[in-house]
Amino acid sequence: MSQAPSVDAGIQQRLAALLAPILPDLAEVDARLRAELRNDDPFVNELAQHSFRMSGKRLRPALLLLTARAVGEINDDHRTLAAVVEMIHTATLVHDDVLDEAEVRRHVATVNARWSNQTSVLLGDYLFTHAFYLASTLETTFGCRTIGRATNIVCEGELRQTASSGDFSLSRDDYFAIVEAKTAELTACACLLGAHYAGADASVAEELQCYGRELGVAFQIADDLLDLEGDEQAAGKSLGTDLANRKMTLPLITLRDRLDDAERNRLMGLFEEPIVESQAALLEWLADSGALQEAREEAAGIAAAAVARLDVLADSPAKAALAGLGQFVVKRNA
Amino acid sequence: MSQAPSVDAGIQQRLAALLAPILPDLAEVDARLRAELRNDDPFVNELAQHSFRMSGKRLRPALLLLTARAVGEINDDHRTLAAVVEMIHTATLVHDDVLDEAEVRRHVATVNARWSNQTSVLLGDYLFTHAFYLASTLETTFGCRTIGRATNIVCEGELRQTASSGDFSLSRDDYFAIVEAKTAELTACACLLGAHYAGADASVAEELQCYGRELGVAFQIADDLLDLEGDEQAAGKSLGTDLANRKMTLPLITLRDRLDDAERNRLMGLFEEPIVESQAALLEWLADSGALQEAREEAAGIAAAAVARLDVLADSPAKAALAGLGQFVVKRNA
Repeated sequence: MSQAPSVDAGIQQRLAALLAPILPDLAEVDARLRAELRNDDPFVNELAQHSFRMSGKRLRPALLLLTARAVGEINDDHRTLAAVVEMIHTATLVHDDVLDEAEVRRHVATVNARWSNQTSVLLGDYLFTHAFYLASTLETTFGCRTIGRATNIVCEGELRQTASSGDFSLSRDDYFAIVEAKTAELTACACLLGAHYAGADASVAEELQCYGRELGVAFQIADDLLDLEGDEQAAGKSLGTDLANRKMTLPLITLRDRLDDAERNRLMGLFEEPIVESQAALLEWLADSGALQEAREEAAGIAAAAVARLDVLADSPAKAALAGLGQFVVKRNA
Repeated sequence: MSQAPSVDAGIQQRLAALLAPILPDLAEVDARLRAELRNDDPFVNELAQHSFRMSGKRLRPALLLLTARAVGEINDDHRTLAAVVEMIHTATLVHDDVLDEAEVRRHVATVNARWSNQTSVLLGDYLFTHAFYLASTLETTFGCRTIGRATNIVCEGELRQTASSGDFSLSRDDYFAIVEAKTAELTACACLLGAHYAGADASVAEELQCYGRELGVAFQIADDLLDLEGDEQAAGKSLGTDLANRKMTLPLITLRDRLDDAERNRLMGLFEEPIVESQAALLEWLADSGALQEAREEAAGIAAAAVARLDVLADSPAKAALAGLGQFVVKRNA
């Protein structure tokens, strides 16, 4: 489980091509992450390096560096902050895996599966606090403040999601509010930081923040679709956890809202049954009704809206890469 | 369980008398904590307010405000930072209760017992990130940096403690290193912040930081003793969790290190047995051997060393209160 099989080589190649304008900077961010997470205590060191292998696509650092490059020059503050956002993202993954009782992520055993839930809770805290410390090494408090606020909103979103677990009546609006908080706030924050620290005007920085938010929402819908119908081998992580945890996602909400009372009750019955018994029937219903396809199209539409935000930027390879990410996040299998 | 019974009224009174010089400021800190943790989402709001009731003695805010007053004047930065250190302390308590599977803290049901482990993990994260955001509202990064570094060391200490769980051979040095990190780093940080933001010389700030560190170590040893021999009703929390979790604490280390090989093996056998069977025998051995008493004296000696650090300060009611806390932390039953 420690080596990623070649099955997701395709997606890595497509992503690498998009990220060409910032590959040397991303490599520097990776080196900084490795260095920051080195620890004299062998146990702490092993855990931190393990978490580093588990986090994967570097989407958030890439967004931060690409927005910086699209606006102006990448500087050392950007590289620090790119490491910070990735560390925070990794912390949330480590804690998510406890919540979801997931066993594998990116073809690597999760911390809770390999060590324990206790270790996962503490490792997540260790990564959070390290990230905050790193942000505070910049000259001004803007980075800390932006990251502190965004991360707090992420946690609030996760709490609201936990409270809504098992709630078949979760509204579309509440679903989107939760996704905007738990996922899109951090991608929005990455874009804002990239633009701000490259000297962008406030209006440009705000548009790029909106790009990041919409991209994050599209990404999450695609992620939810992957959890429903994806291939575990390609995705490199445990799937089907949303249904098992009775989490309402967009396809289910879409299907529910078009059913009459009798059919809606039948759907609710399936949703509340043990998932090993109802999964096949639910997936078939979602596919046959067109709800999966509709959610896919909705994600694509939101990603397109995100890309339209990029009109505030002059043409550049970095801008083209940001536009390419808009396609990428909704068309991936991992 | 929602009201603290009068059994710990005595300890509250003793503490209130010590804190007299800063009571109005502590009340302001409490008001700020309440206001900061108010949330539009009813579920998030209920959780945050619950955590606020569960954290208790306000030792860390008190240390921060008393060192400030002992050096100069308490200002608004101090009140903000006092709320920050209490919020961080509360976050670590919420996560500790998950790790320890504790059910009651300060006569209030723990978050994991009343809601779930998932909710506890996320609530702790919510409190951590809120605290970091709040620290970043100060003008300079000194507060964020000091708190980020200290909190990271706390987490590292907790991770090392988890790794050492069940390790009968844990050395005295490692025990003290873990306690310095997981408990004393935050009390040291509170004193440093109080002194720094009151304009203390670097040398005075450093002595007060050492006072906070030694006070924290003494406090933790006393806490470990309480967990072994305390009264759950008075303490207001689940006790006996250290033995149940096979955590080596100072009395056990002291006893182990004075035994011959045969007796040490017998002790190890008891330590590794299910605790319901061995607890009475272990406690009797610890008491009869004088190991409990010796650990108590060691805590008192460390607290006295902390108080000696206060010689850098001119006499004042705040200095007297800091000295009083040196007595208080080792002579309490809650």
